[in-house]
Amino acid sequence: MRRLLVKSSAGDYRMIVGRGAWQALRRLRGYTSSFVLTEASLWERWGRRFARESGRGRVQPILVPSGETSKSLARAGNVAAELLERGADRRSLLVALGGGVVGDLGGFVASTYMRGIDYVQAPTTVLAQVDSALGGKTAVNIRGMKNLLGTFCAPRLVVSDPAVLASLSPRAFQSGLYEAVKHAILSGPGLFGWIENRIPGLKPGHTKILETLVARAAQVKVDVVSRDEKEAGLRRILNLGHTYGHALEEATGYRRFLHGEAVAWGMLMVTRLAELANLLDPAVGKRIASLVSAVGPLPRIRDLGEDKVLGLLPRDKKAVGGRIHWVLPEGIGKVRVTPDVPQAAVAQAFREIQRGVVNV
Amino acid sequence: MRRLLVKSSAGDYRMIVGRGAWQALRRLRGYTSSFVLTEASLWERWGRRFARESGRGRVQPILVPSGETSKSLARAGNVAAELLERGADRRSLLVALGGGVVGDLGGFVASTYMRGIDYVQAPTTVLAQVDSALGGKTAVNIRGMKNLLGTFCAPRLVVSDPAVLASLSPRAFQSGLYEAVKHAILSGPGLFGWIENRIPGLKPGHTKILETLVARAAQVKVDVVSRDEKEAGLRRILNLGHTYGHALEEATGYRRFLHGEAVAWGMLMVTRLAELANLLDPAVGKRIASLVSAVGPLPRIRDLGEDKVLGLLPRDKKAVGGRIHWVLPEGIGKVRVTPDVPQAAVAQAFREIQRGVVNV
Repeated sequence: MRRLLVKSSAGDYRMIVGRGAWQALRRLRGYTSSFVLTEASLWERWGRRFARESGRGRVQPILVPSGETSKSLARAGNVAAELLERGADRRSLLVALGGGVVGDLGGFVASTYMRGIDYVQAPTTVLAQVDSALGGKTAVNIRGMKNLLGTFCAPRLVVSDPAVLASLSPRAFQSGLYEAVKHAILSGPGLFGWIENRIPGLKPGHTKILETLVARAAQVKVDVVSRDEKEAGLRRILNLGHTYGHALEEATGYRRFLHGEAVAWGMLMVTRLAELANLLDPAVGKRIASLVSAVGPLPRIRDLGEDKVLGLLPRDKKAVGGRIHWVLPEGIGKVRVTPDVPQAAVAQAFREIQRGVVNV
Repeated sequence: MRRLLVKSSAGDYRMIVGRGAWQALRRLRGYTSSFVLTEASLWERWGRRFARESGRGRVQPILVPSGETSKSLARAGNVAAELLERGADRRSLLVALGGGVVGDLGGFVASTYMRGIDYVQAPTTVLAQVDSALGGKTAVNIRGMKNLLGTFCAPRLVVSDPAVLASLSPRAFQSGLYEAVKHAILSGPGLFGWIENRIPGLKPGHTKILETLVARAAQVKVDVVSRDEKEAGLRRILNLGHTYGHALEEATGYRRFLHGEAVAWGMLMVTRLAELANLLDPAVGKRIASLVSAVGPLPRIRDLGEDKVLGLLPRDKKAVGGRIHWVLPEGIGKVRVTPDVPQAAVAQAFREIQRGVVNV
């Protein structure tokens, strides 16, 4: 079992990674009641084990449908109403057992229910374990605008059991690996080389190696959010690949790509963009692109209109005063955040990756 | 012009009270854009003056319908979508110009829009100026459950111009005065006696005396929330009269009473309850009841079923583990918060006030 410490203005909290991590919930006492926000299929598969390990035998699930549409204000209202009906008060605990959607929604509801109750992230996807469950960002979407309303609200605890990743589909699993690769690019040659050497073994069910991956990749995010909890600056580096990525997701109505897949395309594009801006040695760029590609196949982008995708770039909500903060790799373990990128290069990088001109 | 300082974990902020208080907004610089959340009738009457005094000539209003129904999640989503459409980013400023509904909704949207933007409370009712605009509590209702979702989020500034109170109806004005009386009961003989002596002069349009009232009554709340921002304990005293009050509002579907009127009935009832519990000298109880009654007439409660009203008491959301924290006056300037009140006394106090057995 590995323990990571996340610093937060509202109190530091721990992330526990390893088989049986849910047992850490036993140490959380003093709550009047506990609730689990999750999906029916997850609860069916893991509910009994969760109740046993967490020591919360009488815990009752609040179920939400699978998928991004659950990250809505209406759903948040429904969950709040259900919490109230079942007697949740200000001293109740909410556990978000699921992927990014459940985590974001659960965190949003917990941070606003009666103006805030404690919550625990129990992530069940690679993406959530290495990324979204950490850092206290919660959100819902409004009319297709991703994460338009949300809060910064630290969880009480994050418990990541890599054994639950065994039930992921290969595609969902791979989508999360791209985010781990993103963290490796941010982190440096150590983690990057470790993943390069082990990519064939990173499969659902390989719990031991996944425990190391999750702990190491999560540590990268922990280091960043501990220094910049509220996205004042540094935290922006976590958006590596997300600027193009969000545009790709939006251009396809959030239906074609899993989030990590869109980010993977985005990482390929910003890697090329960094080369075009003479910020990145093409040999290193090739190494980055090779690892991204080694994770697995990506949904096609050839049919997407360049103007459409690029027209969606400025809607990135991290834009302040209308500018885009590009996160460009300058090497493995080194990125630059800058708004100063020529529009022509932005288009060229997109086009080259789209047309496969750059051999990735 | 009077200045009050409110302490907050997220940074202290000022409340400015007096004619021309909106001018204090001129000192808030560095925002990419400014928006005003308000109601059409308020904007029609005060918009031009607000734009001029605040130095925000190009400020555009976002209008919401008058009334409690605007305090909904759906409305919060609409406001957020409108902010996005009009180009609001993380460095935009939102001003809530209105009463409690606009303040609570505006604060909720601001505290969650892109995970939080700065906002200013510009209260336009007595209730909001002495109470709801202060303290950083934001909220929306869910299916009739008042304030079920919300945040603690301090405004950047509170600007209260008593001149705007001139446009209130006599009933709305009086409703707010009850909250000022509540603060006087909490505060002590100084403010209580001041209000007793000036009650005939406390009218809309009497701007000079209202400036003193607002500043003094607001100071009571400032003192409390500065010591207990997140309602850990002390802040509960502000719920004086609210336990019965909320039950009365809910029993009548929030249609019969203005909030302050329900609180006024609630204050009469807890005053009697404190007498029944031998916590309050009846002579002092009579003085409290007399001042509450001197504010003006209250909507009837004679027709309300005792069982119905009392059955709604436990739904008070401040209840932890199902208990109600009663706030009972022990004197002028002294209250006790206790869950230990016999149910029979709770019913008797309600019944006596309802039937006018106690001459108030």
